Amino acid sequence: MRVVLGVEYNGAQFCGWQSQPNGCSVQDALEKAISAFTQLAEPLRVVCAGRTDTGVHAWAQVVHLDTELVRTEQSWIRGTNTALPSSIRVVWACCLEGALAEAFHARFSATRRSYQYLLLNDPVAPATLTGLVGWHHAPLDVALMQQAADLLVGTHDFSAFRSSECQAKSPVKTLDRLSIRRQGQLVVFDCRANAFLHHMVRNIVGALIAVGVGRLTVDEFQRVFEGGDRSVAPPTFSPDGLYLSEIEYDARFGLPAFPERRLLSSRC
Amino acid sequence: MRVVLGVEYNGAQFCGWQSQPNGCSVQDALEKAISAFTQLAEPLRVVCAGRTDTGVHAWAQVVHLDTELVRTEQSWIRGTNTALPSSIRVVWACCLEGALAEAFHARFSATRRSYQYLLLNDPVAPATLTGLVGWHHAPLDVALMQQAADLLVGTHDFSAFRSSECQAKSPVKTLDRLSIRRQGQLVVFDCRANAFLHHMVRNIVGALIAVGVGRLTVDEFQRVFEGGDRSVAPPTFSPDGLYLSEIEYDARFGLPAFPERRLLSSRC
Repeated sequence: MRVVLGVEYNGAQFCGWQSQPNGCSVQDALEKAISAFTQLAEPLRVVCAGRTDTGVHAWAQVVHLDTELVRTEQSWIRGTNTALPSSIRVVWACCLEGALAEAFHARFSATRRSYQYLLLNDPVAPATLTGLVGWHHAPLDVALMQQAADLLVGTHDFSAFRSSECQAKSPVKTLDRLSIRRQGQLVVFDCRANAFLHHMVRNIVGALIAVGVGRLTVDEFQRVFEGGDRSVAPPTFSPDGLYLSEIEYDARFGLPAFPERRLLSSRC
Repeated sequence: MRVVLGVEYNGAQFCGWQSQPNGCSVQDALEKAISAFTQLAEPLRVVCAGRTDTGVHAWAQVVHLDTELVRTEQSWIRGTNTALPSSIRVVWACCLEGALAEAFHARFSATRRSYQYLLLNDPVAPATLTGLVGWHHAPLDVALMQQAADLLVGTHDFSAFRSSECQAKSPVKTLDRLSIRRQGQLVVFDCRANAFLHHMVRNIVGALIAVGVGRLTVDEFQRVFEGGDRSVAPPTFSPDGLYLSEIEYDARFGLPAFPERRLLSSRC
């Protein structure tokens, strides 16, 4: 049986998603909690849809694991949550069997991924939301940033926004949404693509902020993007405001939707 | 000169507002930062508009202090913030002189106070927002809760919702707003009064949740409220989701407005 879990986490206290020898990752904490629940001799390994970096959060991570153990979906949720630290929660579980179990893979079956970036644009740094929002002190011209963002929508080579440690086979991705809106002193970036390169969202946010403060014109932004040279693009922006916000799969898998557990409703 | 500061804080790491011998409070951290900035031999004491409990947050605390020191308002903001922990920020400063300085008092000049309570109403506890929202697992009937809440609006004796440690002279307060709305899996309580008793909002939220789950009918809620006996009312609810969200003063003081630095816009 392939068990699929919907997972939410605050990444501030973790060294990213991926398992580390010292056990500091979200994956380590989740696998440890699952072991505590299942009481199996062999530890279960989980596979996720999108590996997040240190400090990056997830409203909607999706993971799968394989086991012969028969437990109800409610048991997977409650049993795992009992053993998890309070900054990670299994929000839903779905047990796939037969052909669906064979066809589903948290990472390879994902058709689209969405990230949201929350940026406090205010002279004063965050206090209540420290670790949950990025911050830029100088006023940003969001209309100009949206002009630059529009150049990225479509199928392109995103090498200019790709970390040197990226392991993706190709730098070509299809970005089908990159919208930027202001809400009070917050600037909200919504980004959707078939897949993302390592650091791609944070690199794009950094470059768009350079446009927003006038350090880069829209034309210069376009040349940086089209040049494909990471070393001349603005630096990677902070992980604090980055959220893995949606993973899409074919409807035939029948996975549950994530309930709206966030302060910033997608309807606002 | 009387210097007025607008202060935002995440209360999770503090033992409430009020100064403690071990220095664990928001007031202690703020006074220490002000001392570091002013470099005066005598420590400056600050007076706040509303003393918050352990774990309670503030979007909009207002404090004042008296000093002969002449500094620009920008200096008060930046100088203090440099020395503050990242979970407290001075958002604005306003230097009052002469008659206005004599007339203003952060606590006694406040005409109205608002608190917001954010409650996650979902079978699964918070993860990303741990410490920033309260939590109740069972579905709440918000319409019924609003019916009960409507009974509290007006000038009443709030003894049923008053902590035994409350030092207020009178249990009679004027509540002019108590609205409850649902946004996804969140329930948002907005509460405004001339002043609040100790634990009043958390005690009201606790009693309204009892109504929302059907543990108390609206009639029973009314009898508890009118009986004025704290010992028969439902328990005090968690501080995690409570925010001091606005303090109102006469316009003649000319205090700056707090910028919209929150995820949950008041416009949503």
